[in-house]
Amino acid sequence: MTLEEFRKAGKEVIDWIADYYEKIGEFPVMSQDAPGEVRSKLPPHPPVEGEPFADVMKDVEDIIIPGITHWQSPNFFGFFPANASGPAILGDLLSSGLGVNGMLWATSPACTEVETHMMDWLVEMLDLPEKFLSTSDGGGVICDTASSATLCALLAGRERATNYESNKSGVRNELTVYTSNQAHSSVEKAVKIAGLGKDNLRLIEVDETFAMKSDALSAAIEEDLENGKKPAFVCATSGTTSSTAFDPLTQIGKICKENNIWLHVDAAMTGTAALCPEFRWVHEGSELADSYCFNPHKWMLTNFDCDAFFVADRKALLSTLSILPEYLKNIASKSDAVIDYRDWQIPLGRRFRALKLWFVIRHYGVQGLQAHVRKGVELAQLFKSFVKKDDRFEIAAPAPLNLVCFRAIADDEINEALLTRLNSSGEMYLTHTKLNDRYTLRLCVGSALTEQSHVETAWEQIAETLEKVK
Amino acid sequence: MTLEEFRKAGKEVIDWIADYYEKIGEFPVMSQDAPGEVRSKLPPHPPVEGEPFADVMKDVEDIIIPGITHWQSPNFFGFFPANASGPAILGDLLSSGLGVNGMLWATSPACTEVETHMMDWLVEMLDLPEKFLSTSDGGGVICDTASSATLCALLAGRERATNYESNKSGVRNELTVYTSNQAHSSVEKAVKIAGLGKDNLRLIEVDETFAMKSDALSAAIEEDLENGKKPAFVCATSGTTSSTAFDPLTQIGKICKENNIWLHVDAAMTGTAALCPEFRWVHEGSELADSYCFNPHKWMLTNFDCDAFFVADRKALLSTLSILPEYLKNIASKSDAVIDYRDWQIPLGRRFRALKLWFVIRHYGVQGLQAHVRKGVELAQLFKSFVKKDDRFEIAAPAPLNLVCFRAIADDEINEALLTRLNSSGEMYLTHTKLNDRYTLRLCVGSALTEQSHVETAWEQIAETLEKVK
Repeated sequence: MTLEEFRKAGKEVIDWIADYYEKIGEFPVMSQDAPGEVRSKLPPHPPVEGEPFADVMKDVEDIIIPGITHWQSPNFFGFFPANASGPAILGDLLSSGLGVNGMLWATSPACTEVETHMMDWLVEMLDLPEKFLSTSDGGGVICDTASSATLCALLAGRERATNYESNKSGVRNELTVYTSNQAHSSVEKAVKIAGLGKDNLRLIEVDETFAMKSDALSAAIEEDLENGKKPAFVCATSGTTSSTAFDPLTQIGKICKENNIWLHVDAAMTGTAALCPEFRWVHEGSELADSYCFNPHKWMLTNFDCDAFFVADRKALLSTLSILPEYLKNIASKSDAVIDYRDWQIPLGRRFRALKLWFVIRHYGVQGLQAHVRKGVELAQLFKSFVKKDDRFEIAAPAPLNLVCFRAIADDEINEALLTRLNSSGEMYLTHTKLNDRYTLRLCVGSALTEQSHVETAWEQIAETLEKVK
Repeated sequence: MTLEEFRKAGKEVIDWIADYYEKIGEFPVMSQDAPGEVRSKLPPHPPVEGEPFADVMKDVEDIIIPGITHWQSPNFFGFFPANASGPAILGDLLSSGLGVNGMLWATSPACTEVETHMMDWLVEMLDLPEKFLSTSDGGGVICDTASSATLCALLAGRERATNYESNKSGVRNELTVYTSNQAHSSVEKAVKIAGLGKDNLRLIEVDETFAMKSDALSAAIEEDLENGKKPAFVCATSGTTSSTAFDPLTQIGKICKENNIWLHVDAAMTGTAALCPEFRWVHEGSELADSYCFNPHKWMLTNFDCDAFFVADRKALLSTLSILPEYLKNIASKSDAVIDYRDWQIPLGRRFRALKLWFVIRHYGVQGLQAHVRKGVELAQLFKSFVKKDDRFEIAAPAPLNLVCFRAIADDEINEALLTRLNSSGEMYLTHTKLNDRYTLRLCVGSALTEQSHVETAWEQIAETLEKVK
């Protein structure tokens, strides 16, 4: 592709994206495609000769768009927000254009140093403990997802619990891990990957707000100690995926300190709320954590992927993840004056993801990002008030922020039918969970484009649709 | 950012990228920044209010560019190529614009189905074994890097070696892993992450071409069996990072079959060569492999990150990586008619990375991609001929493709000084390795912009610089 062709095609893609956002509310939010429908429109064999760019873009319209579930739609209320934004898209575009690999400081100093700087800015913006600053013994790094951050935290905890020997002769059957029965599935996945065994994962029971019971955690640890196990790692959640429940970090943190257990805090979605002083209670107690992560790619207007992962003591993390083959040695690394982020993550290579974060923070400023969070919370609270006023529905969990769990006062089958019908309509997209073993609908607000009118319309449609599925 | 602002700023970024490529040959290839220099130019605190986009782009020029090591420069011959291209950049841009999360088929069917289709196209384009097709018991998936693919393969191998019990009660000390002493550091990293222990990793010796000795592999396996170990996993390399050595896949594959050991083939850089029939020997024997990976993001004009990872039997992979919390359940997944790629990888979330691959394959066609590979090989072979003709230098390893390992016939110190001086000049960028414990320079060709003149100039400068450091 010549540079002239790139200029022309690139501007067409930019306009295509802007056009897409102009009409995004018109698409069915959930793709209406059946399994195999996209593939059936693609030629079975790759082209031998190159094709014109216009043909590719035409297929984007005809084949890709019908197969898209529109996460950026103002009527997307599923799972969690996956914010895209203009500055993030352009920061990522610039990263693609530069095409550098930031595996080592030396392979592009700016890629590493902007990342370190952004991680320090985030500590300040969220008022996180100073021990997560790069100027302390800890520091932050961008991971792809909270799943990967949790795995890295677990590996660091495993390393510390085995006197930095876990790498050497392999793990045994004695290390135990604790999280609430409402925690994200990534904790179980990490336990399996790290070879600790699911049998050594304790799912601690929760209270009526779906938060981990700290006395149950204590009891489980004691029982394991009595049985010769070695409690190694606790993952507490600040805002569960299922219902935004908040584990009591201060109490859990004390238990961990007493038992020398690594405490990781997963604040994937709700961490962003701490941009606003009035929501900083979300990480109360995090000063007792050994590691912490949240996802700017969820609710902070920064395109996926961008998880911010902080450790209080980078030694354990580096001890388990660092490698140094000859072909990666270089003068800067030897000098110890630089960070090589390849030692902070699972993969070796890395994109320049800090660019989009830098673009976002500078474009919106802290105030602009705070306004985005406040809008999401206000709209979710408005929705909660609608549910509360309607005696055909009930609120299923405390909803302090931007996620409302609710259900029709009816059988699970009715609620499931309600969800299926709403999503099939294409007018909106919700997802579900189970709370106290009952089918529960989730409405999560946080898309950049969602306004009051969308939430009002959503509620009207939910109430109307209930009558049709009863 | 309003859509009008986005259109304007987006076109400026497109032009900025095109301008960057117009002058890319003028920058010092390796950043001349000292540690801390980038950060010293960034404000210590994040902005409270948003800033104009023009200010951000000005800082990109003033702060970021000097801190960049220009991987896309025609004079970049370090590590391995990290190809960017116009269609890949635009495919990634479109992916950012759509902002979908493809963790499940249902969360954007096109994201999953285009990926499956591209993986099948790649099997055809590279003439890989049919068992890697999605229509077989196996299939392909896009990972971020070969490091992650190797980890996933190891986890699948671990699972199979323990009768699908490794997830349950944790791994023990009996599983052993084999790779050559020239293999990528990611194998050791994966062994550590998976909790198998470095002590259970056997680094098999190599022959004079730096390829794994299959009789040494056999001997190591036998010894482990005698000692009560359970050989579980072999990682063979098709084109080592250090010197493009090729392990004998057919012989290794037979040994693995006899012992029921999972064989993974890491063809990170050189897999792309198989686009050309004359280079398909690179994966001769891969029909005996259980899994295989190569990186279109290295030499196939597809921006990082894009590793293509194939398994012959997806059951072991899914068995070790699948999770199914209530909040991810959906009708399509239950139907078994779809692929949910979250179960094929470490993270949960995923970008629409297949778009860039689709754009690249369609824009260039198979012929265009073949031409790119052939150019890289021709230029590297030209460079090799220069080295061979000069009796001050020697070739340090067979160089069948696009990487030439060479050294001045002199002490390690002279060679290291030569490399340091060349890189400091900013005129070119090379990296090094050690072969037979001797410091060795590596010149790897594969940047989209590298032409014969760049390789000729590089050689002239290398020869001249040697006289200055002697």
